[in-house]
Amino acid sequence: MATIESVDLFYLRMPDVQDIGDGSQDALLVRVRDGRHEGWGECEASPLTSMASFVAPMSHSACKPLSSVVIGSPIDDPDDIRAIAQKVKASCLDLPQADHMWAGIDMALWDLLGRRLSEPVYRLLGYQRAYPKEPYASNLFGDTPEATRRTAVRLRTEGFQSVKFGWGPFGRRTLAEDKAQLEAAREGLTGDLRLMVDAGTVWNDDVEAAELRLPSLESVDAFWLEEPFHGAEIGAYAALAGRTKVSLAGGEGSSNAAQARQLIDFGRIGTVQIDAGRCGISSAHAVAQHADRAGVKFVNHTFTSSLSLAASVSAYAGLEAHTLCEFPVSPKPVARDLTTVRIILGRDGLVRVPEGPGLGIEVDQAHIDKYLVDVELKFARRTIFRSDRWVLRNG
Amino acid sequence: MATIESVDLFYLRMPDVQDIGDGSQDALLVRVRDGRHEGWGECEASPLTSMASFVAPMSHSACKPLSSVVIGSPIDDPDDIRAIAQKVKASCLDLPQADHMWAGIDMALWDLLGRRLSEPVYRLLGYQRAYPKEPYASNLFGDTPEATRRTAVRLRTEGFQSVKFGWGPFGRRTLAEDKAQLEAAREGLTGDLRLMVDAGTVWNDDVEAAELRLPSLESVDAFWLEEPFHGAEIGAYAALAGRTKVSLAGGEGSSNAAQARQLIDFGRIGTVQIDAGRCGISSAHAVAQHADRAGVKFVNHTFTSSLSLAASVSAYAGLEAHTLCEFPVSPKPVARDLTTVRIILGRDGLVRVPEGPGLGIEVDQAHIDKYLVDVELKFARRTIFRSDRWVLRNG
Repeated sequence: MATIESVDLFYLRMPDVQDIGDGSQDALLVRVRDGRHEGWGECEASPLTSMASFVAPMSHSACKPLSSVVIGSPIDDPDDIRAIAQKVKASCLDLPQADHMWAGIDMALWDLLGRRLSEPVYRLLGYQRAYPKEPYASNLFGDTPEATRRTAVRLRTEGFQSVKFGWGPFGRRTLAEDKAQLEAAREGLTGDLRLMVDAGTVWNDDVEAAELRLPSLESVDAFWLEEPFHGAEIGAYAALAGRTKVSLAGGEGSSNAAQARQLIDFGRIGTVQIDAGRCGISSAHAVAQHADRAGVKFVNHTFTSSLSLAASVSAYAGLEAHTLCEFPVSPKPVARDLTTVRIILGRDGLVRVPEGPGLGIEVDQAHIDKYLVDVELKFARRTIFRSDRWVLRNG
Repeated sequence: MATIESVDLFYLRMPDVQDIGDGSQDALLVRVRDGRHEGWGECEASPLTSMASFVAPMSHSACKPLSSVVIGSPIDDPDDIRAIAQKVKASCLDLPQADHMWAGIDMALWDLLGRRLSEPVYRLLGYQRAYPKEPYASNLFGDTPEATRRTAVRLRTEGFQSVKFGWGPFGRRTLAEDKAQLEAAREGLTGDLRLMVDAGTVWNDDVEAAELRLPSLESVDAFWLEEPFHGAEIGAYAALAGRTKVSLAGGEGSSNAAQARQLIDFGRIGTVQIDAGRCGISSAHAVAQHADRAGVKFVNHTFTSSLSLAASVSAYAGLEAHTLCEFPVSPKPVARDLTTVRIILGRDGLVRVPEGPGLGIEVDQAHIDKYLVDVELKFARRTIFRSDRWVLRNG
C-alpha cells in the first residue's frame, strides 16, 4: 500500500503582474510524492491564500488545514482520490479557499497514479480513448473595435474555426461601443467562423443590463454568451436564458461539482465550462458525466499552462460529442514555458491530450527556479510553512 | 469626506483547539479606523487563510487582495459600504476566501458608521425598531442518548422554549442510534418545547440517506431539519423537501447573498440561516429582505461572540414576523469574554440587540491581549503582513 508522503507547493510569478483579465501571470504548482513516484498539479489564482489554507491551524472539526487530511492518506487507485476528496469536503467545509488548493492536489494525485500505473489519466477515468478536440482561441477584447478586428483577422489566418473575445471594455462602456466591438469581431472572423463572447460576470445579477446586449449578440450570431452573471446567480441565468436564442455558457468559477450542477439543473445554460485548476480533475469529470446526461455541452476552461490544459481536457477526453476545447493562445512566459512537454495544435488544427503516463506533461525545473517566489508563513512565532529553492531541491 | 485609513486583523485562539463542531474556539477580529472613529467585526473560521486573502499579491484583475480594494475607500454612509462590497466582488471573483474576510470588514464598517452617526446599526439598515427575538439554544448532540437527554432537561429548566441538537454522532452511526438520540432529546424537552435537528451536512448530497431518518424526525415532531446536505446541493434540498412535512433549514455556509437565494428560490427550504461572520451584515440584510418576500423564515446563525451575535441579529432586527434567534449557549472563553458588553437573555427570556451606537458592543482589549496569536506572512523575503501586540497597541 502506498501513501502520500509529501505535498510541496511552489509559487511562480511574472515580475510584473498586470491589472488585466489574464490568469496566466502566476501559478501555484503542487508536487506530490508517494516515496517512489511523483505527480504535478496546478491551482488557479492567489497562490499565497491557497498555501495558507494548506497549513492554517484547525478552527474546529469542519475547518482543518488540507495538509492534515491529505498527507499520509493511502493512494493506490482512483477510488482513493475520491475518498480523500470526500474527507476534504467534510474537514474543510468552513474553509472556502480549500477547494482551489485541493484542485491542484487532486490533479497531482491523478498524475502520480497514472505514472505509477503507466496509464494516461483519461484511461484511469474510464475512457477507452481520447478524442481530439477542436480548439477555440480565447482572447481579451481589444481596447478599440479596430484592435479586436485585427486580432480576429489574425486568428482566422492562423486557421482557428472558433474564436472567443471577452473581458476588457465589454459591458463596461456604452451599448454602442459594445455593439461596435461585436461587429468588429464578426467582421474580422467573416461569416464562416464561430464567435463566442465572454462577459466576465460584468452584469453581476442584472438581467436587464444583459438583455440590452441581446440584439447585438443575436445580429452577430454569437455562438454563446459566457458568464453574463456571477456563477452563483442561478436565477439570473435562468431568466436571461428564457429571453434569447443565444445559448448561455458558464461555470468556470465552480470550485466544486455541486456549483456546476446548479447551473446545469436550474440555470438553463447550454454549455458548462470547467476549470480543473479550481475544482480538480475528479469534480471536472463528475460534471462532464452529469452534463452529458443532461444534454448540456461540456468544455474546459483553461487560460494557463499545458499542465492545466491536459488536466482540464482529460476530464472529458472520451466524450466524443463534446468537441470544443478552450485553447490558451498567448499565455505569459511563466505559464507557457512551465513544461518541457507542451500541448500544441496538430497539423489538422486539433488538440490532443498527451498519451504519456499520468498527464503526459513534464515540468521544467530550471523554469520553476527562474520564476519561483519564496514564501514563509509564521504562526505564534513558529514557521509553519516555507516554500523556496531548498524545498524544490530537497523537499 | 471620510476614508478607511486602516484595517487591522487579530487572531485569537484557545490554547487547545479541539476536533469538535464548536466554532467558538478561535476568532478573527477586524478593527477599521477612519481617523476619528473605529469599528469592530469578526470573521468565521480559519483566521490565517482569511488574513492571507487580505494581503495576497494580485494574480490578475479579478483576483486582488482585499486590502487593495478596501483601504482608502470613502466611508460616509451605508451606500459606501455597498459600493465597496460590489468592488470587492469584482476584484476578488477568483479568491473564494475573500467572502469570509470581507464579512468581518463589512461588520466593522457598519459598526464604525453607527458610532460616527450615533445610531444602532439596525437603524442604519432602515429598520425603525428592533423586535426582541426568541432564542433557541444551540447544542451538540451528546455522545450518548442519555447525555443528550440530560442536556435537554437542563435547557428546559433554564427556560428555553426551543432547543436544537446537532453534529456529534448524528447521521454517522446506525439508524437505530439516530432514532435513540432523537427520542432522548424529545423526552428531555417534553412535548412542550420545539426541537430542531442539525445534521451538519452529514449526508452531503445523498437524498436516500437523509430520507431514512424522516420517520424518526416526523415522530419526534422536529420543527426543522437543518443542513441535511452541503449548502450547494440545491437539487438534493429540493428533492428531500418534496418527500416530507418536516421543514428544511439551511444556508449558514452562504458566503454571499446569491448562495442563500439559491436555497430559497430553488432549494425549497422553509428557514434560511445566515451567519454574518461568513457573508457580512450587508448580505445578511439583503437575504433577510428576500426571504421575507419569498415567505421563508430568516434566522441568524451564530456560534461565537456577542459581537457576531449583534451583527447577525441586526440584519433582521426590524422584521417582526421572523421571531427566532440562534443563541450560543456555551461558547468557549475566547469568544465569551471577548466583549465587555454582552448580549444576555432578558428576564422575559428574549434576546435584544443593543441600542448603543454601531453594534453596541465593546471589545475587551485585555482579553484580546490574552488570546492573541502572532502572525507574520512573508512573500519574496519581505514581510507583507504582521499581526501582534504591537499592531494592537500602535497600529
